[in-house]
Amino acid sequence: MSSPRIVVIGGVAAGMSAASQAKRRQPEAEVIVFERGDRISYGACGMPYNIGDPLRDIEDLVVLTPAQAHKRGIDLRLRHEALALDTERRVVTVRDLNTGIELEEPYDALVVATGAQAIHLPLPGFDLPGICELRELNDGRHIKRLIAEHAPSKAVIVGAGYIGMEMADVLTELGLEVTVLERLPQVIPGWDAATVTILMETLEEHGVRVHTSAAVTGAQAGPNGRVTTVTTQSATFEADLVISAVGVRPQVDLASGAGLRLGDSGAIWVDQYQQTSDEYVWAAGDCCEAYHRILRRNAWIPLGTTANKHGRIAGANASGSRLQFGGIVGTAGFQVFDLEVARSGLGEAEARDEGFDPTSVTIRQRSRAHGYPDGVPVQVTLIADRPTGIVLGGEIVGREGAALRSNILATALASHLTVSDVQNLDLVYAPPFASVWDPVLVAANQLIKKVGKTA
Amino acid sequence: MSSPRIVVIGGVAAGMSAASQAKRRQPEAEVIVFERGDRISYGACGMPYNIGDPLRDIEDLVVLTPAQAHKRGIDLRLRHEALALDTERRVVTVRDLNTGIELEEPYDALVVATGAQAIHLPLPGFDLPGICELRELNDGRHIKRLIAEHAPSKAVIVGAGYIGMEMADVLTELGLEVTVLERLPQVIPGWDAATVTILMETLEEHGVRVHTSAAVTGAQAGPNGRVTTVTTQSATFEADLVISAVGVRPQVDLASGAGLRLGDSGAIWVDQYQQTSDEYVWAAGDCCEAYHRILRRNAWIPLGTTANKHGRIAGANASGSRLQFGGIVGTAGFQVFDLEVARSGLGEAEARDEGFDPTSVTIRQRSRAHGYPDGVPVQVTLIADRPTGIVLGGEIVGREGAALRSNILATALASHLTVSDVQNLDLVYAPPFASVWDPVLVAANQLIKKVGKTA
Repeated sequence: MSSPRIVVIGGVAAGMSAASQAKRRQPEAEVIVFERGDRISYGACGMPYNIGDPLRDIEDLVVLTPAQAHKRGIDLRLRHEALALDTERRVVTVRDLNTGIELEEPYDALVVATGAQAIHLPLPGFDLPGICELRELNDGRHIKRLIAEHAPSKAVIVGAGYIGMEMADVLTELGLEVTVLERLPQVIPGWDAATVTILMETLEEHGVRVHTSAAVTGAQAGPNGRVTTVTTQSATFEADLVISAVGVRPQVDLASGAGLRLGDSGAIWVDQYQQTSDEYVWAAGDCCEAYHRILRRNAWIPLGTTANKHGRIAGANASGSRLQFGGIVGTAGFQVFDLEVARSGLGEAEARDEGFDPTSVTIRQRSRAHGYPDGVPVQVTLIADRPTGIVLGGEIVGREGAALRSNILATALASHLTVSDVQNLDLVYAPPFASVWDPVLVAANQLIKKVGKTA
Repeated sequence: MSSPRIVVIGGVAAGMSAASQAKRRQPEAEVIVFERGDRISYGACGMPYNIGDPLRDIEDLVVLTPAQAHKRGIDLRLRHEALALDTERRVVTVRDLNTGIELEEPYDALVVATGAQAIHLPLPGFDLPGICELRELNDGRHIKRLIAEHAPSKAVIVGAGYIGMEMADVLTELGLEVTVLERLPQVIPGWDAATVTILMETLEEHGVRVHTSAAVTGAQAGPNGRVTTVTTQSATFEADLVISAVGVRPQVDLASGAGLRLGDSGAIWVDQYQQTSDEYVWAAGDCCEAYHRILRRNAWIPLGTTANKHGRIAGANASGSRLQFGGIVGTAGFQVFDLEVARSGLGEAEARDEGFDPTSVTIRQRSRAHGYPDGVPVQVTLIADRPTGIVLGGEIVGREGAALRSNILATALASHLTVSDVQNLDLVYAPPFASVWDPVLVAANQLIKKVGKTA
């Protein structure tokens, strides 16, 4: 019997994690990665910060080079695009983008890690020079070069999600005048109003102009053929740089073409072993759903940290193991200027939509002890299911000690802790980094009054 | 029927928490606090940092003034010492230290919050001027005044526990030459050697001289009658300021005199409702034990955060509620210079002594993402029970993002999570405050290889 052939489609976070894990667990296997682009394994989440520093090369974000991958025994084929998948015959049709040659590549086990792609706004003028998306490493390189060569002075960011917020920060710091246009009535849609208030204050302090309920209608070119204005239904905004950051969609063409089951989210359905509806195909990363421990079903929340965990599980299981993915709880965070913003679990409206009976509190507590200098307010919003007292989620925001505190929530949510359990957590206390009642405990002490009959 | 009379002995963290909670839950109750000293409710843990800043008043550490306590409806009797307790007749004998008058005070419910006291080294010369302990607010005031008036230049700190370490920091920053003498073979006894190594490096970088296995034999006076040297069996150290910080012992005279049960630790035994062996007496804070969730029995780990939680429970239950204390997991942390040092759970040797079969790993991972500037190494030691895979404890040390990460362990330990559970935690990730694999996850990914049969 020949050595097994494990094929991975996609060579960024999830794909390279899967390939590395498979090769490590089954060294005799042939592990082949087909990657459409010319780079592998880069930290895409670091791109805004890298763009903010003209002295850093975008290549700094590459975690693993092709040479290092080869050294791990991975057969890496860059600029190879997977066109079709036949799960009956267990072959994937791949085109070498250098030569145009198409080949059928057989596999014993397949990992689909095709990721997600930026949503392209189908608006008039949205293909003008000066309008950029930010998803792949080449996008980041493009924006850096554009800033270096054209020295833009006015940026419009379309979309006020995490990337929009991070780009508002870095472009402001680079000296641009920044306007953010968000179609929905608030920035970071889905987050609690109390968090949004603090975030808006920070954006305002730094001179970022934010327009919500502002649906973009198009972009117009100036005499040089480059973007010069962006319009909404009611206004026109000058811009010599436009970042379109309105979200991503899972790249599922290969999977759906092969008849693999998609979930309600439109991403590839997987079980807790990252196995797709086909027994020889696993999926990992932004192209597929993830089991959500609070919802107790799959959800699609594409993030780098999940992609890495998925990759490890999918790679292990494609090479004969039987690891279970522990599930996500919806943790996410970002930094805007000096403000840390993080969440875990469900938002209150989302919880209500999901059939819970949520109640919540928002409190502020200093990041350091009473009498210790330089503490700042940390705001915690904590949400629980009223009848059961089980914590459903929370948001933490502040200029210090906010993001890492969301890990308390992430860990509590993984265990379905109640408000009373959280109230009793033995959290660390010392004046330089916490008050004797940690902000999370203060929130629990308040929320306990609003849930169940316990006290 | 007259209103119930709830008496609290001790007015610092646990006592004032208990009194406030009792009065809030049972406003008709008479709530009386007898406090031996002339201050209540101060943040004792903040004293080292306050001493480090000559411009701050030690009174800044007072969280609640007597006037505020009175406003809450608490009948506060300062400079009143509880001498004896008769649980049969439900009276406590109290002496007014101003007048010397002794009175029998009846109670319906009693909360004992007598705290702990500094261990006084019974060594020749250890009552010389210039030798200080640091436990009560007056101790802090005394040290501040001594520094201001005598401008000492050479300090010896006896004992390398948390307070010894914090004082080494603040005295060095104040310009003193600092020597730490520890009787045991390592600083912060009980902590992992990997943590101690980092801590020792930091102490050395800042010029703190540390002598371990150095048992102090006495202190000697100079011509001015003040301390001038400290001796061990093998050496003599110059010192015009000596901080004796060799630990504390629970103040249980009142409780043991009344026949209340003491635990194996020597502190007052309590059940999970903070009730002592007498049905009308509760205890809270440093004078009593606390239920330890990993040991599944009581332990004595006197810390301010536990004292506050205890106080809340004891006060509620003394006023007719039935709240359960969730238990501790042994979380503790401190900062020395720019180094954060924190732990939760058991140490490896302690775990072995307790009958577990522990195994551990120590890893280092940067505090920020690959390619993001200014990250520092965070070192995580993670300990688990080999056969079950249940996490038993961990230590985290680093110049950024170390202390708050110990809350991941504290929360995981409260739920008895396994290494595999920890490995799957959905922790926050964004380049400014975490790497895509958080240091705690990296440790779990390593430790999983050493436990059970899972992988």
